[in-house]
Amino acid sequence: MNAEIIAIGTEILIGSIVNTNAQYLSQKLASHAIDVYHHTTVGDNIARLVSALENAAMRADILITCGGLGPTEDDITAKAAAIFLKQDLVYHKPTHRAIEAKLEKAGKKISPLMQNQCWVPSNSQIIFQNDHGTAPGILSTTIYNDKRIWLLCLPGPPRELKPLFETKALPYLIDHLKIKKQFFKVRTLKIMGSETSVAEKVGDLMKLKPPVTLGIYAKPSLVELKIMSKDSSESKTVAHVNRIEKIIRKRLGKSIFGIDQETLGDAVGKILAKQKKSLSLAESCTGGLIGHEITQSPGASNYFKGSVVAYANCIKTQLLLVPSKMIERYGAVSPQVAESMAQNIRTSFGTDFGLGITGIAGPTGGTRSKPVGLVYIAISDVRKTQVYKNIFMGTRSDVKHRAALAALEYLRLTLLS
Amino acid sequence: MNAEIIAIGTEILIGSIVNTNAQYLSQKLASHAIDVYHHTTVGDNIARLVSALENAAMRADILITCGGLGPTEDDITAKAAAIFLKQDLVYHKPTHRAIEAKLEKAGKKISPLMQNQCWVPSNSQIIFQNDHGTAPGILSTTIYNDKRIWLLCLPGPPRELKPLFETKALPYLIDHLKIKKQFFKVRTLKIMGSETSVAEKVGDLMKLKPPVTLGIYAKPSLVELKIMSKDSSESKTVAHVNRIEKIIRKRLGKSIFGIDQETLGDAVGKILAKQKKSLSLAESCTGGLIGHEITQSPGASNYFKGSVVAYANCIKTQLLLVPSKMIERYGAVSPQVAESMAQNIRTSFGTDFGLGITGIAGPTGGTRSKPVGLVYIAISDVRKTQVYKNIFMGTRSDVKHRAALAALEYLRLTLLS
Repeated sequence: MNAEIIAIGTEILIGSIVNTNAQYLSQKLASHAIDVYHHTTVGDNIARLVSALENAAMRADILITCGGLGPTEDDITAKAAAIFLKQDLVYHKPTHRAIEAKLEKAGKKISPLMQNQCWVPSNSQIIFQNDHGTAPGILSTTIYNDKRIWLLCLPGPPRELKPLFETKALPYLIDHLKIKKQFFKVRTLKIMGSETSVAEKVGDLMKLKPPVTLGIYAKPSLVELKIMSKDSSESKTVAHVNRIEKIIRKRLGKSIFGIDQETLGDAVGKILAKQKKSLSLAESCTGGLIGHEITQSPGASNYFKGSVVAYANCIKTQLLLVPSKMIERYGAVSPQVAESMAQNIRTSFGTDFGLGITGIAGPTGGTRSKPVGLVYIAISDVRKTQVYKNIFMGTRSDVKHRAALAALEYLRLTLLS
Repeated sequence: MNAEIIAIGTEILIGSIVNTNAQYLSQKLASHAIDVYHHTTVGDNIARLVSALENAAMRADILITCGGLGPTEDDITAKAAAIFLKQDLVYHKPTHRAIEAKLEKAGKKISPLMQNQCWVPSNSQIIFQNDHGTAPGILSTTIYNDKRIWLLCLPGPPRELKPLFETKALPYLIDHLKIKKQFFKVRTLKIMGSETSVAEKVGDLMKLKPPVTLGIYAKPSLVELKIMSKDSSESKTVAHVNRIEKIIRKRLGKSIFGIDQETLGDAVGKILAKQKKSLSLAESCTGGLIGHEITQSPGASNYFKGSVVAYANCIKTQLLLVPSKMIERYGAVSPQVAESMAQNIRTSFGTDFGLGITGIAGPTGGTRSKPVGLVYIAISDVRKTQVYKNIFMGTRSDVKHRAALAALEYLRLTLLS
């Protein structure tokens, strides 16, 4: 059983966006041992899409299209699918009602344009409603050149495509297509730091051969180790992965902050919740980003009380009670001010931990002694306040993101110490 | 003249990496008005690559492959190219010498494996040396089905591919292929709202024919209109784009918040700076995200003073002075509390505008009367405070992002009113 992914969108062909849907779908298909031999991208053009479907049908069993299901003129996927399938388009009332219900909640009515999304090929196997948008997913099947072909049409926006594929279309395909049970397991261990420093400790494991292999991938500010295993049962793949994870954990210890989708914010939140400790933040250069990261985790209100974003110096003095003489003497970007921010937010918000951060995000504002990227991070608890000096590289956005991640990592290590 | 991009690499097909080379090349080709109608990806497999080249030759004039030129067993591009071109592979001594010279600088010798990279199709037009790696670029030509086809093979790593293409291969192609000097211009207009509501106003323009066309794209919480023009001079393309932009602006007016890379945070910042107004925020459910968005723009310190993130109710009462009776009576997620947050942050931070936001990000905490996604946003200035009720769909992260964007849009419209 093999699949082909066909992305639809002129904006991909002119390079306005990168085809991340193909990557996502490839990963998911690989994890179910469904091979993918081709990715194709065509523009918003019926003839070229039909021809891409026909080519794909010659070499694959499952054709998955992404995009072109929206309400406008250039959304041509349902039409092209109907031509390829030799079916008519019919108006799908349950989709109409689903869209109507969704809009009603927001106090809106279904417009004629919106109704364009309700037309689907007449013999469609199943129409998947879209919980994160209005265009539904379509699954059809046909015999093409004496071979059974499945065609799955998914909406283009990744935040609609992913949940629809993962929770609805993929389980349906696995159940109904008698896909040979092969198991693929990947577990990602996440570490703050450089690829080199991690590779020095686990480089030998990269020579592992199937049924279990290890890959190392550098991501912005962090490193991911992917343990991958393919075998004939789930328990076998899990056992392989567990065995390698154990070896890696022995070598890297608590520098591994999380697995798979877990973020550093999740990891910090989990420890705070477990230790029943509370947190407040005094942010300057990060502008609110650390609070945003912390509050991405459900249940954050159990340990996060809030922050003061003291972007202007007067807020640092008035709200955070940083002495103005301190700012005059050492500057707003100084270890003293970071320390004072952390201590004062902790006491004024009445939390167990206070985090203070002040720095120069750039692109301007740097000097010889205080360059762009200089960031002081302070962590305060009832016993002591520790200040860390960092110089981060990159754009304004890079500096903010790296500073936020570093702050969370200092906090995590403090909590674990 | 049109081109097709063929990426080679099993790691793309299993989703380990995303095909950014296709995006990069598409942008560069589009900016020289060379059309791209198809992207294809195949694995490290000679037969499938030859077949992809043959298919591409039926529909394109220039075939550009990325990857598979390295020294190892699974690098199969030169071999597949030779089969497609019906040429032999020959050992290219200048490439050998170039690699040797490069390695010598690093005190190394050319290994037998490394020499694999010196084999090229016998009638190659030109071999481009790679200044950032060892695998060269190959340009060949052939007659296929009575049509002249150019085949350009580029190394896969983006840091090698980009400079080789930009400084060597593309200039050569433009000079030697008699590519008609054509210019391409794209301008993106950004609008908050739904694709449908925008399409209702400008849908007729989507039927425009070259030299200027219009595309509409739904992004999370916003819509992008891309005006694209191709013509024989830059001034002509700019004139076409300007003409259509003017028509669209007449219809959509100030609902267009920005162009091209401009974010909603940038747009708000620009207006605040121009009007010499200052801003403070009282965030709850967004956790700091609005402050983060605002401070992504360089120079944000000129108008943004800071925020209080009042995640816990006690911070709302103690720091933002929201009456605790108000919270008891109406709940923390209520228009009254949003209003009080906006007013109090404005007066306590001494800014021209105050923004208050309180809501239920989920996934838990919703009730029948106050569902997950319910968010109140208040904008306060010296004259009045306006409160907006919203219900956002999606995950916790979706709700936070949509709420932050909606808040910035209300602020922008208030500033412009």
